[in-house]
Amino acid sequence: MSHNTFGHLFRVTTWGESHGPAIGCVVDGCPPGIRFTTADIQADLDRRRPGQSRFVTQRREPDKVKILSGVLPEDDGETLVTTGTPISMMIENVDQRSKDYSDIAERYRPGHADYSYDAKYGLRDYRGGGRSSARETATRVAAGALARRIVPGLVVRGALVSIGEKEIDRANWSWDYVGHHDNPFFTPDPKSVPVFADYLDEIRKAGSSVGAVVEVVAEGVPAGLGAPLYGKLDQDICANLMSINAVKGVEIGNGFQAARIRGEENADEMRAGGDGKPVFLSNNAGGVMGGISTGQPIVARFAVKPTSSILTPRKSIDRNGKDIEVKTKGRHDPCVGIRAVPIGEAMLACAIADHYLRHRGQTGKGE
Amino acid sequence: MSHNTFGHLFRVTTWGESHGPAIGCVVDGCPPGIRFTTADIQADLDRRRPGQSRFVTQRREPDKVKILSGVLPEDDGETLVTTGTPISMMIENVDQRSKDYSDIAERYRPGHADYSYDAKYGLRDYRGGGRSSARETATRVAAGALARRIVPGLVVRGALVSIGEKEIDRANWSWDYVGHHDNPFFTPDPKSVPVFADYLDEIRKAGSSVGAVVEVVAEGVPAGLGAPLYGKLDQDICANLMSINAVKGVEIGNGFQAARIRGEENADEMRAGGDGKPVFLSNNAGGVMGGISTGQPIVARFAVKPTSSILTPRKSIDRNGKDIEVKTKGRHDPCVGIRAVPIGEAMLACAIADHYLRHRGQTGKGE
Amino acid sequence: MSHNTFGHLFRVTTWGESHGPAIGCVVDGCPPGIRFTTADIQADLDRRRPGQSRFVTQRREPDKVKILSGVLPEDDGETLVTTGTPISMMIENVDQRSKDYSDIAERYRPGHADYSYDAKYGLRDYRGGGRSSARETATRVAAGALARRIVPGLVVRGALVSIGEKEIDRANWSWDYVGHHDNPFFTPDPKSVPVFADYLDEIRKAGSSVGAVVEVVAEGVPAGLGAPLYGKLDQDICANLMSINAVKGVEIGNGFQAARIRGEENADEMRAGGDGKPVFLSNNAGGVMGGISTGQPIVARFAVKPTSSILTPRKSIDRNGKDIEVKTKGRHDPCVGIRAVPIGEAMLACAIADHYLRHRGQTGKGE
Amino acid sequence: MSHNTFGHLFRVTTWGESHGPAIGCVVDGCPPGIRFTTADIQADLDRRRPGQSRFVTQRREPDKVKILSGVLPEDDGETLVTTGTPISMMIENVDQRSKDYSDIAERYRPGHADYSYDAKYGLRDYRGGGRSSARETATRVAAGALARRIVPGLVVRGALVSIGEKEIDRANWSWDYVGHHDNPFFTPDPKSVPVFADYLDEIRKAGSSVGAVVEVVAEGVPAGLGAPLYGKLDQDICANLMSINAVKGVEIGNGFQAARIRGEENADEMRAGGDGKPVFLSNNAGGVMGGISTGQPIVARFAVKPTSSILTPRKSIDRNGKDIEVKTKGRHDPCVGIRAVPIGEAMLACAIADHYLRHRGQTGKGE
Repeated sequence: MSHNTFGHLFRVTTWGESHGPAIGCVVDGCPPGIRFTTADIQADLDRRRPGQSRFVTQRREPDKVKILSGVLPEDDGETLVTTGTPISMMIENVDQRSKDYSDIAERYRPGHADYSYDAKYGLRDYRGGGRSSARETATRVAAGALARRIVPGLVVRGALVSIGEKEIDRANWSWDYVGHHDNPFFTPDPKSVPVFADYLDEIRKAGSSVGAVVEVVAEGVPAGLGAPLYGKLDQDICANLMSINAVKGVEIGNGFQAARIRGEENADEMRAGGDGKPVFLSNNAGGVMGGISTGQPIVARFAVKPTSSILTPRKSIDRNGKDIEVKTKGRHDPCVGIRAVPIGEAMLACAIADHYLRHRGQTGKGE
Repeated sequence: MSHNTFGHLFRVTTWGESHGPAIGCVVDGCPPGIRFTTADIQADLDRRRPGQSRFVTQRREPDKVKILSGVLPEDDGETLVTTGTPISMMIENVDQRSKDYSDIAERYRPGHADYSYDAKYGLRDYRGGGRSSARETATRVAAGALARRIVPGLVVRGALVSIGEKEIDRANWSWDYVGHHDNPFFTPDPKSVPVFADYLDEIRKAGSSVGAVVEVVAEGVPAGLGAPLYGKLDQDICANLMSINAVKGVEIGNGFQAARIRGEENADEMRAGGDGKPVFLSNNAGGVMGGISTGQPIVARFAVKPTSSILTPRKSIDRNGKDIEVKTKGRHDPCVGIRAVPIGEAMLACAIADHYLRHRGQTGKGE
Repeated sequence: MSHNTFGHLFRVTTWGESHGPAIGCVVDGCPPGIRFTTADIQADLDRRRPGQSRFVTQRREPDKVKILSGVLPEDDGETLVTTGTPISMMIENVDQRSKDYSDIAERYRPGHADYSYDAKYGLRDYRGGGRSSARETATRVAAGALARRIVPGLVVRGALVSIGEKEIDRANWSWDYVGHHDNPFFTPDPKSVPVFADYLDEIRKAGSSVGAVVEVVAEGVPAGLGAPLYGKLDQDICANLMSINAVKGVEIGNGFQAARIRGEENADEMRAGGDGKPVFLSNNAGGVMGGISTGQPIVARFAVKPTSSILTPRKSIDRNGKDIEVKTKGRHDPCVGIRAVPIGEAMLACAIADHYLRHRGQTGKGE
Repeated sequence: MSHNTFGHLFRVTTWGESHGPAIGCVVDGCPPGIRFTTADIQADLDRRRPGQSRFVTQRREPDKVKILSGVLPEDDGETLVTTGTPISMMIENVDQRSKDYSDIAERYRPGHADYSYDAKYGLRDYRGGGRSSARETATRVAAGALARRIVPGLVVRGALVSIGEKEIDRANWSWDYVGHHDNPFFTPDPKSVPVFADYLDEIRKAGSSVGAVVEVVAEGVPAGLGAPLYGKLDQDICANLMSINAVKGVEIGNGFQAARIRGEENADEMRAGGDGKPVFLSNNAGGVMGGISTGQPIVARFAVKPTSSILTPRKSIDRNGKDIEVKTKGRHDPCVGIRAVPIGEAMLACAIADHYLRHRGQTGKGE
């Protein structure tokens, strides 16, 4: 990825900071003739929106998306159809709590990018995290909502599989439960909810934070997307996921577990399917073999670190190179990994949409 | 990454298969005036070369690199100086054991990309792995040998930290030992050698294979390289590592461990250094904060799966969609992760060199 | 160029159509610390704005630019300083005359992209030219206003050198006159104004249109920008100019004239300057030799075709493949080449800014 | 274009200098299943090869191409089939006349890139033009030979339409004559041969040189390739042509002539064709409307300057900033424009192949 654009044929450019007038993205290379409504995009945005439970930041942002270009309205007044030209989407920033940032402007918060920004740019937008604010991820979700519509039959879903030391029990996995209104965690395991809630309440009250692991799965991906070595589908998925704030690790299929086992255990065996295609007897590969999709579900996971905005005083320095102590007040997510679920889905969908178009370009194969 | 080119200003394009006449790469965007010798490149290639112990493939390839363009010879007859134009490097394939591949041509080996290649391209170069052959990685090592010379003071090293279930003891870490002539594993822990040797001998004799984890570290990286979100330094490092054959997961700093711990534990505290720069009290971030280098050592790890070329018969299908059993004979690495160490170093060096030039371009800052 | 993004380090992505809510651009890779005001951008936009004389379209658009991201406000309330993150600029569409486009929707206007759009996309935004509307060029001018600020000492200017059969007299060239309030043509030759006025009045009254040639000149470009063959500075300038609507030809320096003359006449001779740099005795090369700037002024020209929106009935077909006659009513520029002057300047400035950063990245050389 | 790579899906990276061991290119993104022979590539190379008449340089290079990767040999021992992986092609340099270049190393030849190279890189490969040598264009021809095979039914041809002050008579145009063995000029006008021959003989004997204009035409291009504004087909064609050494201007269709005429004259009228597609009554647009192909032949022209390697002494300076006189001995083309014909064809073919794949990717439309 170069600069703030990702994708090769389905390309997304994002812009905006926490405390400017708005954030947004430009989706370029979208096929013409894709039909959707603003409400479709909004539905995905609403899943990521802050302030929906006590476990996420209390910033109140309606996150209303405006579609500014690249579409023709149809006669029903709701449906938009893509024209093949760049689709610009914008979300205005509303709840920018006015406060005095002069304090933060001169201090380097540990675990934040304050020092590294200054080392790079010589200045930084210290208001609410600037470009690094989690708000930026709303634009990814908007782009992803379009990406989901490119590949016929594609279904992309995500779930939280652990918070700190607490893990779900995979035996209880229910995709239906992930979106349930009683589920503030995107967890697929109903039994994990009270465990996560108690754990996070304790962390929140202590003014602390904790990390999480998110799993994203794409079904309906045709075999053949990707490339052997550098435009590997799994590589581009991992790069997309690594581009999310606070992500420290990514894996595909059994991931790091593959390093522990033997060839016999790892290689997914095949049997003939009725249609001449293979039926795989396992999916350690996570749906990608040699960088190219196999037709199995694509499975990836990523690790989100705990936010460094915590109440405990921490050792640091200021811009003048003096030792200080820092503690961060404000509205923060005790576990930013929770809201990362729809973001991860969006980034996965964008990678697949891009490779779908690239594959069609090089080989002429669509559906 | 698009196609077989990676990097934005320091760009590498690789080409070649296992059984063609040669493999190679073109390094484009290299600064002018970099001095090196062919022997410098060769030294790195020799570290990756097969056939150096019983724990790696017995294919015998001298891997002699030829520099075809982009350099001016100096009067000493050895030193080459880069001119700023594309540097083409080629390695001829020598030991292509002649054999009948018609068998493999019609069969899909489990865990290999045979099926996915056919699904994508409608045909594949089945001879020795084709483009997916580990041979291709020699060209990365050659490019990396140049990349190491771009950033003044940069030192990039790697080590094997686990093979299958066996891990090193970090208390014994010795960088000096990694390159020791008695160390066939690139392990930094001398005491791990007999453990790894016994373990791998058993696996090799069983015709099996096993995965591994490699850690790569870059020291001397100036603060400021990278970008907040999409051109993140850690993201480009991870994408580079994921582009290596058989890699299934990547992480930066404490990686997946960050998902398990709290903000107080994770955020690296700082104290004032004598030079106005911070001294970090830990390096959980792995040298990258908010996508931008902090001046600390950059630390990344990647998981390599076990090769699927094993003697145990496995269930599969052929091109006609018939059930078959496959076992793979031939010269294979029982643990391909071992030779991945210099490859990982090279990919890390390339990412850093690229971001060094990009940072200089955008901000005008050199070392 | 790929998609709607141009530039490699200084990258511009534009979006928007004539009849959507807004148009805009994202400038990515801008160095941090560049100071400017919204009024600076607006001044350039006002030069391109329609409705300023009877020789251009009467559409009334205030073209007020909004800066949405990538800047920090300084205490004076006016100055903005770039942070190094993407700068999003938006211009709302105001004067979208409501009318019934169903007529045009079904007809292919000769000389317009109606047929080719349908051939590509299967549908098109027929309202006011859609993506091909000259309105889009406002976003280029906004981006160019930033680009002008990247290279210290850079001055980019443009002038109209011919309209249809009428040419300026280069002996009368006055840069000062180009921006004179009595000069509706961006012509550098005061004596050409009545000639152009009479000529265009006749054309306008006839419901016709005519082409033009624009010359753009950049002074203060340091020697060394560009590359020998593929990232040639003149090539990227020409590509930028060719990306403008209705441009059919581009040339650098003496351009097509170089094809007519001999080596002795063409090669620019040099004498030693006081500072060790050459003084060139002519500038046939247009400031670029072997793809790399020489320090002389960069001179390029581009040909703009007459708009095809004319009152004379012309033979065409409709979407059903039936023969029709088309004449185009509406508010159109009798000579779109006039307003192309600030657009050409902007595209030249963008190319130079990009190569300035690229040169600095590869070689470490600043001004 | 960035660095030495061009194209977005059909990508070509070239490398090599006049006096290194070899030159070459890597074609990446080529569709799988394209069948060709080395002789097919060689046939195009032979058209560009030097030493074939007294009107071109007498350097003797066999220009034998080697295909190093990306293909599978078929059983006939001649046919190669592309696998979809990078195709590396190499041409060894044979006739590098050994001579003392120390003279040129210290002198800046007027009209050459000697000074600008030094200004950029601080050093240069002064041997035989280095990267700027016309030899490099052989690699473009090799890539173009593949590109011609991507679009079914595509025919790309070129012709010389003027040398210095001498122009062809278009009434005599014969494509068949261009390749005639008695035609050393790629001229389509048989009657122009003695005129060009006399003219060039005089120039050659005077140790001078002269420019030329080349026209390239592509037939069989489906409607719909390109994009409205930035990925315009004509823009990418012009950028490809401008990337050729010594090219100073490019135009599409009637080009600069469009700036002189009125809308009624310029817009190509249409009548209904039998197949629902339009029949155009003229082709001023050169086959591209609004950046997108119309199905008409694509016509472009480019101006080649006279080589600056001439025997007449010219004023210049040396690396120490001293005034000198320079005259260039050696084997040079009196009119480099002649051999530019197959090069222009190749660059046109590459642009079309790339957009064909891009169009197929975005829209799913094949031929």
